[in-house]
Amino acid sequence: MNKSLDCIFRPRSLAVIGASSTRLKIGREILHNLIDYEFNGKIFPVNPKEGVIHSMKAYASVLDIPDPVDTAIIVVPKEKVAGVAEQCGQKGVKGLVVISAGFREVGGQGVALEEELLGIVKKYGMRMVGPNCFGVVNTDPNVRLNATFGKARPKPGNLSFISQSGGLGEAILNFAGSLNLGFSMFCSVGNKADISGNDLLHYWKDDPATDMILMYIENVGNPRKFITIAREVTRTKPVAAVKSGRTVQGAKAASSHTGALAGMDVGVDALFAQCGVMRTTTIEELYDIAMALSHQPVPKGNRVAVVTNAGGPGIVATDALIGHGLQLPPLPDEVVNRLRSFLPEEVSLHNPLDLVAGARGPEFTMALEAVCAGDWYDTIVPIFVQPITIDEIDVAQAIINAKQKSAKPFLVSFMGVGFRSRGMEMLMEAGMPVFIFPEAIGKALATIEDYREYRDKLQAHPDVYPTYPVSKSAVEQIIARYQTAGKKHIVGQDAVDILRAYGISVAPYAIAAEWDEVRRAAAEAGYPVVMKLHTPEILHKTEAKAVRVDIRNEAELRANYDDLKQRIGPLPAGERFSVALQQMLSGGVETVIGMTNDPAFGPLIMFGLGGVYVEIMKDVTFRITPLSEGRAEEMITGLKSYPLLSGFRGSKPADIEILKETLLRLSQLVGDHTVFAEIDINPFIVSHDRARCKAVDARFILK
Amino acid sequence: MNKSLDCIFRPRSLAVIGASSTRLKIGREILHNLIDYEFNGKIFPVNPKEGVIHSMKAYASVLDIPDPVDTAIIVVPKEKVAGVAEQCGQKGVKGLVVISAGFREVGGQGVALEEELLGIVKKYGMRMVGPNCFGVVNTDPNVRLNATFGKARPKPGNLSFISQSGGLGEAILNFAGSLNLGFSMFCSVGNKADISGNDLLHYWKDDPATDMILMYIENVGNPRKFITIAREVTRTKPVAAVKSGRTVQGAKAASSHTGALAGMDVGVDALFAQCGVMRTTTIEELYDIAMALSHQPVPKGNRVAVVTNAGGPGIVATDALIGHGLQLPPLPDEVVNRLRSFLPEEVSLHNPLDLVAGARGPEFTMALEAVCAGDWYDTIVPIFVQPITIDEIDVAQAIINAKQKSAKPFLVSFMGVGFRSRGMEMLMEAGMPVFIFPEAIGKALATIEDYREYRDKLQAHPDVYPTYPVSKSAVEQIIARYQTAGKKHIVGQDAVDILRAYGISVAPYAIAAEWDEVRRAAAEAGYPVVMKLHTPEILHKTEAKAVRVDIRNEAELRANYDDLKQRIGPLPAGERFSVALQQMLSGGVETVIGMTNDPAFGPLIMFGLGGVYVEIMKDVTFRITPLSEGRAEEMITGLKSYPLLSGFRGSKPADIEILKETLLRLSQLVGDHTVFAEIDINPFIVSHDRARCKAVDARFILK
Repeated sequence: MNKSLDCIFRPRSLAVIGASSTRLKIGREILHNLIDYEFNGKIFPVNPKEGVIHSMKAYASVLDIPDPVDTAIIVVPKEKVAGVAEQCGQKGVKGLVVISAGFREVGGQGVALEEELLGIVKKYGMRMVGPNCFGVVNTDPNVRLNATFGKARPKPGNLSFISQSGGLGEAILNFAGSLNLGFSMFCSVGNKADISGNDLLHYWKDDPATDMILMYIENVGNPRKFITIAREVTRTKPVAAVKSGRTVQGAKAASSHTGALAGMDVGVDALFAQCGVMRTTTIEELYDIAMALSHQPVPKGNRVAVVTNAGGPGIVATDALIGHGLQLPPLPDEVVNRLRSFLPEEVSLHNPLDLVAGARGPEFTMALEAVCAGDWYDTIVPIFVQPITIDEIDVAQAIINAKQKSAKPFLVSFMGVGFRSRGMEMLMEAGMPVFIFPEAIGKALATIEDYREYRDKLQAHPDVYPTYPVSKSAVEQIIARYQTAGKKHIVGQDAVDILRAYGISVAPYAIAAEWDEVRRAAAEAGYPVVMKLHTPEILHKTEAKAVRVDIRNEAELRANYDDLKQRIGPLPAGERFSVALQQMLSGGVETVIGMTNDPAFGPLIMFGLGGVYVEIMKDVTFRITPLSEGRAEEMITGLKSYPLLSGFRGSKPADIEILKETLLRLSQLVGDHTVFAEIDINPFIVSHDRARCKAVDARFILK
Repeated sequence: MNKSLDCIFRPRSLAVIGASSTRLKIGREILHNLIDYEFNGKIFPVNPKEGVIHSMKAYASVLDIPDPVDTAIIVVPKEKVAGVAEQCGQKGVKGLVVISAGFREVGGQGVALEEELLGIVKKYGMRMVGPNCFGVVNTDPNVRLNATFGKARPKPGNLSFISQSGGLGEAILNFAGSLNLGFSMFCSVGNKADISGNDLLHYWKDDPATDMILMYIENVGNPRKFITIAREVTRTKPVAAVKSGRTVQGAKAASSHTGALAGMDVGVDALFAQCGVMRTTTIEELYDIAMALSHQPVPKGNRVAVVTNAGGPGIVATDALIGHGLQLPPLPDEVVNRLRSFLPEEVSLHNPLDLVAGARGPEFTMALEAVCAGDWYDTIVPIFVQPITIDEIDVAQAIINAKQKSAKPFLVSFMGVGFRSRGMEMLMEAGMPVFIFPEAIGKALATIEDYREYRDKLQAHPDVYPTYPVSKSAVEQIIARYQTAGKKHIVGQDAVDILRAYGISVAPYAIAAEWDEVRRAAAEAGYPVVMKLHTPEILHKTEAKAVRVDIRNEAELRANYDDLKQRIGPLPAGERFSVALQQMLSGGVETVIGMTNDPAFGPLIMFGLGGVYVEIMKDVTFRITPLSEGRAEEMITGLKSYPLLSGFRGSKPADIEILKETLLRLSQLVGDHTVFAEIDINPFIVSHDRARCKAVDARFILK
């Protein structure tokens, strides 16, 4: 059992430093909430100006408290926080929750204040939540800690929640309450000066009261540590997150808000995909998933049965489910036979199963039990719309009964009398996920299904991080040479040599200047050839018409050579016209393999199909290094244009293994040498013939 | 003023045929709702078995009622409906609302019952809503008609709603009530035997109490009429719709539900795009848009200012807005200067504008008035999260005041104390669109922005449907020849002739069999050439390696000719080996132009880029015929791969005008000759040089 943060979440005695008896002051609200929530331990208000607060003796300083103090909640003005923290250290306090704001998030002097505070925390070996946070909650009946300053009274339950926005704290707790969702613990992490989201994930991994973890985050402090911890957690507990600052402009707002560098969105997607964290775009969706999973297992697959008493909502649900990639297999004969004798003649026995408006409790029970009986469906979606002649309580009870007899997850759409009908409340009280309209069910299930696939795949093929025999020192020597010369761009032969040192095959090429050399080099490479301008280095050679492909004979070579030379015209002194000649690798597919450094996430490997697919269709995948075999494979199969590699219109499938290996070798290169800012292998040609799978051009940029 | 459906929505006397005093019977609930809603006219219950219902004299038949009757609500069992309708006709009743079910929607005998009923309605010149519907509502204080059988009491307002699902009727009214949305009229159209959605659109177009129309539909009975009417309506009143049955499986459920043919989803998208109807995927989104537009104008553009008192929700809003294509321009100097003197120093003056947690009413007023002052923003998004120390009523009032002074639309995210706080209620009562979390605002605004663009474009360039001089009879002759021969596939020279008759340019080609002919034909066409197997017709020639491109000289021609002949091997008796030779149109972009017949929507023109773009990336656009110039242009510019046509990496832009013209000529061909099931012009090559923009191959399939 991991007790690392018990000093925050399981105190037996608390000091509230900055407690107050003035209404609408945070120091009063915090104290009030602690008492109102019946904290199961001693509370000591601290305020040098008030002798009694809320009928409790108030102390002038934490040092005046006669008993030991486990945790201090600090709400004094920012400039007093460091002094108070120092006293806490002297007193032997183990945990601080610093609500006070005005630190790193405001920049300038605030940054220094935060560093001073953190120094004191470290000096005394304390742990700290915040500063600039909304507080913490632990609903354990042995603890009953509600150290927040909102009006929400969190319900006990099995969810734990990390929020990086204090402002959203109250709304998050309120909204959960309205959905009947309960919490084990809640932590508004604020500026994360000491305790981070990673610390909480690690702590909650072993918390028996936490079955699922939800997060609202604006940045990830240590992405590689996050991957490691989250991967452990998601083996047994679902984790779902809203990461805001998704767009470039949103990220800008995020970084001025939290003072933290927020990454590009592809980095976040890659991060979450690599550790099985379910990403939602909205807080509503986060709770949709929480409703689905907090009292039910993850569905075993993607087969859904819809049982409805109205056609319209059945169609809406089918649209949403199919549209999100789920399956609605037809009813098996066994189910059809069982229902035929029981249901009225006008019921047509399909999936969605429309019981028509006359369906009461017994019809719902019968139909739900029938579809649950065998291994035909993984999730059941009962839909009820109130016809005036039917008792909704009766149907709600039937759904609850059917669910209790089955291990399959149910997601219910229930539209009873009135906006929040009694039947709906009954279902929610029974712990069932209830949606008003059925559309949200499709989206939630699809996100959960991705998590299931991730988990199943990981179980079948544990992550393997291969290491290839390479020549690390050869690359070090090349890099050193460029660094000494103060150059940042590595192209040409040096780029080829780097790839070769890491076992990545490259199409050989020759540099030639005079016509005779060119002619000889082309003959040696073997027609058809590609001829590129070699010097001076021109970006986007295609635009400058400086790349000539598919030259089939000497006559064509001569014409192209002359034309290119003429187009380039006179060169600056010291530069000499020359071309690179390469055999043309025909019949393959052009791919692009690259690496970019995300300011927050570090090196990301990129893969896509060449040219238009990358630049216009934006059909690329990213993963954070180091890559495992499974992740490398996902990068390839995850492309929309993947069918072009797997055999399109009778062409032979490309050698996917060599592609995978190339991605893994690049990941190894990036891990061994942290000096690269960007890498472009463009194009890397693949075909069914491994001997013809080769990089054609590459460029490295040093940091 | 259009009074066509006044007989349904503005009756002065009503008969409720099948009225009942038994609880939970529909006949009782309808009568109860009519009375409870205080119908502003006379109500006559009709029931042969009861003398008094609800303290009112009940008549044995509608014929026994001494007064004239405008409208009859019919809830008798299905087999009695026709007889009752006949009596209504004799009585001179003008409108029927048939609630009773068991007609076309159950198939078999129900279809005959519905036809019989419709015959009676037509015979007497009556109009009818239903059968199989949830009823109708008109909230006009002079009418006060609530002829539905649910518990919802619709609030008066300026929305009118068409629902094709009776089952969703109650939920739709309830949900609207919870959002404070009010209706002018509501109509559950049921089986649409007589009165259709088109009739209602036409009627509401001129209804002064209707400012916006919402629809939940499962099929569109007459799509071309819908386009014409909806285009008229959307000039002045926004129309938003959920069309369910979007997926193939959903559509299957739709067609077994309503007995109507539901089209492919591309047809629906095309339909709505062509008449400015906003499509949402969920009913929640439908209401989001209704909230935004029911009391506010359509924003004038896509520039949004976000004013928040908390960073987190500001970031979430920015993500959602930018992610949906809206703009957040920076604050202009004027605004910055005005706010600088007023706001605390720690407020950084950006968009989103974070007023920080201390902001009260005055700060909100100041900031909102400042961003509203000039022509810098089109929509304002105020966001409020409850800090404990701030009075939410004060802030809600400030937002309401600022809105009242500005013509700009406001979309508010308000997270006050509790799930539905007093501040939120105040805003809703003031007619403002209020969202809990800000994410939904982005989606709603994006949908509205599409509508604005459609409307502005239509205003600037009214729809033009050009007619080109063509040779209609030439095509008729070719078609007649195939029909006589019982053949369905038109390819080869006949296909070329059809295109030419409609002025679509085609690359000339020659058929040749023996080597000498082939050699001559190639020389005539001019190298490089393309050689295709001509006979027998092989589908997907690429797979059979039966298309050889870029043949540059006679030697290559010979090698390819021999190879192809050998691959094909001996042919069946009567077949002769021959090839088609065409000049290769190099340097252009391959596009595909086609036509497919949608079972519900009729001919759809398709456009996309060739090969992979169509088949793997699914990057295509569809529009319903006839095409206007504006729609043809949208088909081209709407492609994700459009940059490939507009000049990618320095290549010259393709001749978009000739493409547009080709689409329009094809639309004319399809309109003139309704015998085509499918048309494929693949590829149609386009380049910057109009002389080289040509169809290379075409195939027509007759119905």
